[in-house]
Amino acid sequence: MSMISVNEANERLRSNNRVRVDDETVSLRDGLGRVLASDVVSGIDVPPADNSAMDGYALRREDWAGPDVALEISQRITAGTPPAPLRHGTAARIFTGAEIPDDADIVVVQEKCIAEGQTVLMEAVGELRANIRPRGQDIMQGATVLKAGHRLRPQDLGLIASLGFAQIDVKRRLKVAVISTGEELVEPGDTLKPGQIYNSNRYLLQALLENWGFEAMDFGITADDPKIISDVMLDASRKADAIITTGGVSVGEEDHVKAVVESLGHIDLWRVAIKPGKPFAFGDVKGTPFLGLPGNPVSAFVTALILVRPFLFDCQGVSHSGITPVRQIALFDKKGSFRQVYLRVRTSANGVDVFEQQSSGVLYSTSWGDAMVVQKPFEDIKKGGSVDVIPYMLFN
Amino acid sequence: MSMISVNEANERLRSNNRVRVDDETVSLRDGLGRVLASDVVSGIDVPPADNSAMDGYALRREDWAGPDVALEISQRITAGTPPAPLRHGTAARIFTGAEIPDDADIVVVQEKCIAEGQTVLMEAVGELRANIRPRGQDIMQGATVLKAGHRLRPQDLGLIASLGFAQIDVKRRLKVAVISTGEELVEPGDTLKPGQIYNSNRYLLQALLENWGFEAMDFGITADDPKIISDVMLDASRKADAIITTGGVSVGEEDHVKAVVESLGHIDLWRVAIKPGKPFAFGDVKGTPFLGLPGNPVSAFVTALILVRPFLFDCQGVSHSGITPVRQIALFDKKGSFRQVYLRVRTSANGVDVFEQQSSGVLYSTSWGDAMVVQKPFEDIKKGGSVDVIPYMLFN
Repeated sequence: MSMISVNEANERLRSNNRVRVDDETVSLRDGLGRVLASDVVSGIDVPPADNSAMDGYALRREDWAGPDVALEISQRITAGTPPAPLRHGTAARIFTGAEIPDDADIVVVQEKCIAEGQTVLMEAVGELRANIRPRGQDIMQGATVLKAGHRLRPQDLGLIASLGFAQIDVKRRLKVAVISTGEELVEPGDTLKPGQIYNSNRYLLQALLENWGFEAMDFGITADDPKIISDVMLDASRKADAIITTGGVSVGEEDHVKAVVESLGHIDLWRVAIKPGKPFAFGDVKGTPFLGLPGNPVSAFVTALILVRPFLFDCQGVSHSGITPVRQIALFDKKGSFRQVYLRVRTSANGVDVFEQQSSGVLYSTSWGDAMVVQKPFEDIKKGGSVDVIPYMLFN
Repeated sequence: MSMISVNEANERLRSNNRVRVDDETVSLRDGLGRVLASDVVSGIDVPPADNSAMDGYALRREDWAGPDVALEISQRITAGTPPAPLRHGTAARIFTGAEIPDDADIVVVQEKCIAEGQTVLMEAVGELRANIRPRGQDIMQGATVLKAGHRLRPQDLGLIASLGFAQIDVKRRLKVAVISTGEELVEPGDTLKPGQIYNSNRYLLQALLENWGFEAMDFGITADDPKIISDVMLDASRKADAIITTGGVSVGEEDHVKAVVESLGHIDLWRVAIKPGKPFAFGDVKGTPFLGLPGNPVSAFVTALILVRPFLFDCQGVSHSGITPVRQIALFDKKGSFRQVYLRVRTSANGVDVFEQQSSGVLYSTSWGDAMVVQKPFEDIKKGGSVDVIPYMLFN
């Protein structure tokens, strides 16, 4: 069985994706991290009227006759109060955000003004329309400001609020079942018997899914028993939009997951040219997509970020989930490999340090640093040269 | 009043921070984004015993007599089952993750073996201890793997789980009150009257606080009335660890926030050399830190990321919240300014594009792209040169 490249694996996953989730309407307050189901189109001009960018005085520029000629202050306009039309030959006291009165065409900042009772002297005035934010400057009525498929960030919620929408149409959260397999796995808090190890993948994957805005459905640890695995898989296929397992998909005789998924749908074992993380299984259980990750936690972590994440975002209806690596200086040497390697590294202003022990057995390597270096097949990394880096936070 | 640099503002905030939050114990399952209150020290070796990195056969290397000499298969060891000591002159069938039996010192991968009934032929064997993951390879008992003050990411939870901890000591979530001021503000969903605008800062700030793992406490929009502002401030000072307001701290006559905070504690108005975002207030309300942001949404966004975020993380007990910008190619020209400018930009593999209209009135500028360029005072940006970029996701 020959290997496939990371890009080929991503492409196969995407082209095999049949999952579509329904839309729902939620309060803007619950919108963070949700995915827009329809475009956001402005129903208003923002700002809705010309308004003042500063505290000062609004006037008709042609009414200013010089720094020694006082103008009457004919009204006082605070933010939120509608102004009267400006009386000719007068100025209006005005505050930041307040609406410009009809017939005024400039605001003079108060630092250039001297108020005396009901009159004001202005040292100088600027260009026509100075310190006026024009109606629709930010957004014109009818403009599309955010497109369907966009994952909502804080500033997007601020923007949608500024258009007056209290509710938004989003995709229902994708439901993802997580199943850990392996007789040797024990839950944290229990005591290890000889041969046993703690189940870390469950916590790792649930937290990743949480960061990605999905609903993680925990199906616990399943014994290496075909009947039990089959029951759990069927249950998961009914409740979830996608199923992730860890462990049980290598070619070992003890791996029952493959046979079970084959009997309930189909499964393909892929040897992806990725390190860590080579063995990867993709298929379906009664039509629900099945993603089989390696049991090794570092391999599970890397394949989750590189293979699972884009697929699940695609299922969720996210239009852009690609990540552009940044270039940074390597502070280490590393020979290239036949496979694409994801090195666990730590970044600083000086460059990128690599965790010494890159064995896929060492989960601490993922926690030690803040980023991964993407080392392309056969790419030899030289100290002082530049490398492709992806900070972990960009995977969120 | 002279201006202070961004660094000076950050330093003043940090040195004035007296907030300390209590510790609490939570389930590992609820640990994502929480901040460790104490170091995580391993109570075990990981892995707890030498184990096999591959499916294959475990043996004493010296018992291999060549590719044509079969060895008896004396036991079968799966992951999770304790092995018997290896009988001399035999091999043990072994699977990935399974414990190495006493007296075995190598694992030969199954691809190099031919099994015939109860015996096995091995084409070649590797170095001593090949394919064996040694006990404690990942973590030695007594090692500190994560330090107090660390914000927990998915891989950290996996790591903690791998050590067997089901619970963790974390800092109680910081409670942050958000108060919007401004007569002109209306909630999304309502109809705008002349002079009014929708309140976007409330949604923007609450979502930022949510991303940062804090408990956002919403105190709504407060009228420009000293008595009402005072009541809300007092309430917030009793319930929250810190208070954020937007609007009401410029020098305008309509800004009552300053007088109120002065009467209940103290307030300093800073002119920070930051663009957008110059006016910034810091003080306290009955001892609770008070942070007064500009009412302008873009200014509120930038000051929240650059000034508020490091301060609140410090209050929360986070040890490292600094962000190292990455260098990317500018696809635009931009003259420098006396202030440090945060340009709203969009990154691609080609470089960084700037949003044309960088007026602080245009909230859409923050939503259009995925990053900010940090333009130092007097730094002229030239097309084709490199600039400091911070992807928004790094602020999470």
